[in-house]
Amino acid sequence: MSHRTVFFVSDGTGITAETFGNAILAQFEATVRRVRLPFLDSVDKAHQAARQINHTAEVEGRRPLVFTTVVNAEVLDVFQHHCRGMLLDMFGTFVQPLEEELGIKSNHRVGRFSDASKSKAYHDRIEAINYSLAHDDGQSDKDLESADVILVGVSRSGKTPTSLYLAMQYGLKASNYPLIPEDFERRKLPPALATHRKKLFGLTIAPDRLSEIRNERRPNSRYADLENCRMEVAEAEAMMRREGIRWLSTTTKSIEEIATTILQEVRPERLEY
Amino acid sequence: MSHRTVFFVSDGTGITAETFGNAILAQFEATVRRVRLPFLDSVDKAHQAARQINHTAEVEGRRPLVFTTVVNAEVLDVFQHHCRGMLLDMFGTFVQPLEEELGIKSNHRVGRFSDASKSKAYHDRIEAINYSLAHDDGQSDKDLESADVILVGVSRSGKTPTSLYLAMQYGLKASNYPLIPEDFERRKLPPALATHRKKLFGLTIAPDRLSEIRNERRPNSRYADLENCRMEVAEAEAMMRREGIRWLSTTTKSIEEIATTILQEVRPERLEY
Repeated sequence: MSHRTVFFVSDGTGITAETFGNAILAQFEATVRRVRLPFLDSVDKAHQAARQINHTAEVEGRRPLVFTTVVNAEVLDVFQHHCRGMLLDMFGTFVQPLEEELGIKSNHRVGRFSDASKSKAYHDRIEAINYSLAHDDGQSDKDLESADVILVGVSRSGKTPTSLYLAMQYGLKASNYPLIPEDFERRKLPPALATHRKKLFGLTIAPDRLSEIRNERRPNSRYADLENCRMEVAEAEAMMRREGIRWLSTTTKSIEEIATTILQEVRPERLEY
Repeated sequence: MSHRTVFFVSDGTGITAETFGNAILAQFEATVRRVRLPFLDSVDKAHQAARQINHTAEVEGRRPLVFTTVVNAEVLDVFQHHCRGMLLDMFGTFVQPLEEELGIKSNHRVGRFSDASKSKAYHDRIEAINYSLAHDDGQSDKDLESADVILVGVSRSGKTPTSLYLAMQYGLKASNYPLIPEDFERRKLPPALATHRKKLFGLTIAPDRLSEIRNERRPNSRYADLENCRMEVAEAEAMMRREGIRWLSTTTKSIEEIATTILQEVRPERLEY
């Protein structure tokens, strides 16, 4: 396919347009250049953006794709009438059918994130981030009662990014604990975890991938050595089996996939809100 | 408006359906119950989900809204023909016009996050998360050269969640540094920051909001006292003005809005990728 430029155009952050646009683009074997154009909250800014898009169309000799979540009618009008890109109007397409279905008018409010800072859900999410941060890497045994989930696994199996993502996306208080050689020697979970068995979820990883990741951090160390990684992973998996801890392999999974699987397994009631 | 149930239905994580669905719903003054149904990757699971949706329709006496990003044709077929919800097919709506525009067929690949774990962008994002975590709250002066942005502000002005979000969403290496009474007495930035002036971005916050937040953490402390918060905020803003540091107030902004503003101000070149 020929090269294309894709614009994500919004009067808010553009995060929705980008998330959605990239999901659609993943359906195509296409090489694209992506340009984010957030906060286009005036007709002037819209015209300036339209000029940028039109310039790209001229230079590249084909029309750019323009994913938009613009809510302001006047701003949207600029893109509908003065922009030579292919407009993919994500809101317009669905808002009208929804107005009919719900029997109410949309409020054309810009940005689903606006005013979020006042809501309880937002507050809980920030609390969850702070909690997950304070409980990263077994840093604190305090208040493990409040944890929604406690991740365990060998060093660099993906616990930290997963914990933070669980907090950020799903508002879960996620603590995480490394399984270390001392635990394997004792053949027991870290003592602080014994009374929180139900909240535990294990992450494992293919030893060769683990060795690769650890080598980036500490090249040619015993820590990163493939044989050592094989031993640690085998011990960790044996422990999780012995202790009846649910687990998954992070080797080929993204943090989004890992986090959603954990949400579903450990906190299925949180699938509803 | 009458109460509605909204389903987010996906053969992947459902994060795209949820992000997009919530953005649309924010346009309506509606009270809704939300239900995530991720990983519906077989016809069996689809039928089970459709039964759940149909049951809700019966109990509530009105059809639920069903935002879907299902890619698998057989799975989608179940929802198109056996589900009594209002189907908002986000992919189907845009994929066909895009196939025509691009002159290629979509690959019906499930999940924009799949295989992500192998990509360079994904790797960089995980690196950014680890970096931001290691450089939270002035923990480390090491390797500040690598930082894309260094946030400064008084304690609890929003630096930590913003840093992590910048890393998670935009792959920026974001360090953050508290401005503390000692800095105000010396009337100087923390020494480690002097050579990184261009990367600095300040966060400030309304004193009464700050006092509220600090009171949750340390009730009735001098730290949380409104007068003290006023003094710290005034000193921090004066310092930022004196040092020519760009800044914004986080009082009524979400981390998404704060992060996107910072991206645009400090790393405008990263708006393209």
